[in-house]
Amino acid sequence: MPVSQTLTSAPLFDVVGLGQCSLDILGTVAQYPEVDQKAELGDFLVQGGGPVATALVTLSRLGVSTAFAGRVGGDDFGEKIRAGLLSEGVDCRALSTDPEGSSQVAFIVVEQERARRNIFWTRGSARPLEKAEIPRDLIASARVLHLDGLQRVASLAAARFARARGIVTVLDGGSWREGTDELLPHIDHLVVSETFARRIADKPSEALEALLRYGARAVTVTSGKNGCLTRGADGEIFHQPAFEVAAVDTTGCGDVFHGGYIFGLLQKWSLQRTVVFAAACAALKTRFLGGRTAIPDRSEVEDFLQRAPALFPHE
Amino acid sequence: MPVSQTLTSAPLFDVVGLGQCSLDILGTVAQYPEVDQKAELGDFLVQGGGPVATALVTLSRLGVSTAFAGRVGGDDFGEKIRAGLLSEGVDCRALSTDPEGSSQVAFIVVEQERARRNIFWTRGSARPLEKAEIPRDLIASARVLHLDGLQRVASLAAARFARARGIVTVLDGGSWREGTDELLPHIDHLVVSETFARRIADKPSEALEALLRYGARAVTVTSGKNGCLTRGADGEIFHQPAFEVAAVDTTGCGDVFHGGYIFGLLQKWSLQRTVVFAAACAALKTRFLGGRTAIPDRSEVEDFLQRAPALFPHE
Repeated sequence: MPVSQTLTSAPLFDVVGLGQCSLDILGTVAQYPEVDQKAELGDFLVQGGGPVATALVTLSRLGVSTAFAGRVGGDDFGEKIRAGLLSEGVDCRALSTDPEGSSQVAFIVVEQERARRNIFWTRGSARPLEKAEIPRDLIASARVLHLDGLQRVASLAAARFARARGIVTVLDGGSWREGTDELLPHIDHLVVSETFARRIADKPSEALEALLRYGARAVTVTSGKNGCLTRGADGEIFHQPAFEVAAVDTTGCGDVFHGGYIFGLLQKWSLQRTVVFAAACAALKTRFLGGRTAIPDRSEVEDFLQRAPALFPHE
Repeated sequence: MPVSQTLTSAPLFDVVGLGQCSLDILGTVAQYPEVDQKAELGDFLVQGGGPVATALVTLSRLGVSTAFAGRVGGDDFGEKIRAGLLSEGVDCRALSTDPEGSSQVAFIVVEQERARRNIFWTRGSARPLEKAEIPRDLIASARVLHLDGLQRVASLAAARFARARGIVTVLDGGSWREGTDELLPHIDHLVVSETFARRIADKPSEALEALLRYGARAVTVTSGKNGCLTRGADGEIFHQPAFEVAAVDTTGCGDVFHGGYIFGLLQKWSLQRTVVFAAACAALKTRFLGGRTAIPDRSEVEDFLQRAPALFPHE
């Protein structure tokens, strides 16, 4: 067998993500304007976003090879979304363009003093990925498949395809959507928002238990500055407090948490170490405006964790 | 003298505008979100804006030849601003690009039921026009120079240059700014916002009187749905009610009013007929989302005025 053949049989990308991507237009205001008033923005920034896309950028900064599968519209916004991923080293061969459709765009206003936000967004009209479009070769060669459930049909097909090959599947559960119920049995690691968890049960601990019944190895409910609660299929349960930081902008914190979490999975760390690392990534992200601006590299996370020993209670 | 020489001595453009231009990103929400909440946009639109720029688009749709002088940043937003003006037939030879600077951008959220708005905007970092950059040839050949005072140094130089040649100068006074005081003595027609007028006097009628002392031929204070109050240098004073329309979006109403007003000046209409026409243009503009989407052509304005005789009381 020629050498090149051997090389291509090696994993192409450690992590393949499939889901939504958007263009974030972010601005800061000292305080929200009254209705019918103008507010001049302090900082202003245009940057790619989206749950899976930003998780992949996180992994890329941490040194992991990543590829993104999704669709953008045939507009300038779509070009910017693609360029933003490419500039971070995220492979985009499976990111297609719908020339007739528009891209997802979000305008995010951050009130500076309290880092509170409003997000105004439009989902765009680009066609969703079809089942036949999932990048089977890329997924088959990956170690982890990351989903946000926002490409319903393709997400389900990709999760099934990955699971059948023993590839670890991770789901970012932002909201409970049509198709979530069908997707959950194919997920190994489930990291969901409080909103998602509340659809299952009022108490996060009860939601964890109910969600585990879908068959995941571990479920985590994230609660922003209140930290997160994790439960493993083996019964292990722990609360990880959020690191105390002077947050400038919390946009993308959940996405970055997922990136850090998947990094831990790749390192085969314990669940606790994985969650601490993910929480540190998310905390560091809040240093600057934008979902991606302050995503740390590995040495930044390690330095941060060394300086915050009291908040690294598990190891 | 060769024919080409004769041709170039004819007016190049009826109206030259010098001032600010921006890119408007507009979206509608059913109602404003609470802090830390998301709101999905109904309609979403990206469109050029800016007081002078949108007034020129209005004139262009009314059949008047126009040219715009200003500066955009070396970003995609700047390219979109330029393309938007060119697509409306506004000449852009005097619109330069600052490759190092950013363009002005506004994000405008329209609450649908009540057509209330919030405007979030960033002024950008593109260098202002310098005195030496005012398009003397274009201004010298025009009948009207329209300003918004947002390019302070260039506006003053252009107004002086125009006045010395008997070219009519019009100012859109949105806010009282540094340099406004110096600019006012060079203005023939002053159309200002309530905010601007209140810097002079509490009562609009007193503001009109005080503003006329700067030497204009006519001053108008616009008050949105409360109509406008106009006073001529000859002592004529009248209130024009706003036309009652089911407004979808009031973005750019003032800019369009200026376009209609200048159209009246070019027709040598009476001040009253000019203001009625301007008010009709502004009312028709509110039909759709965006500062420019529903700017009418001349026949639309005339049809509208024929159907609203009770609101056309002066002629």
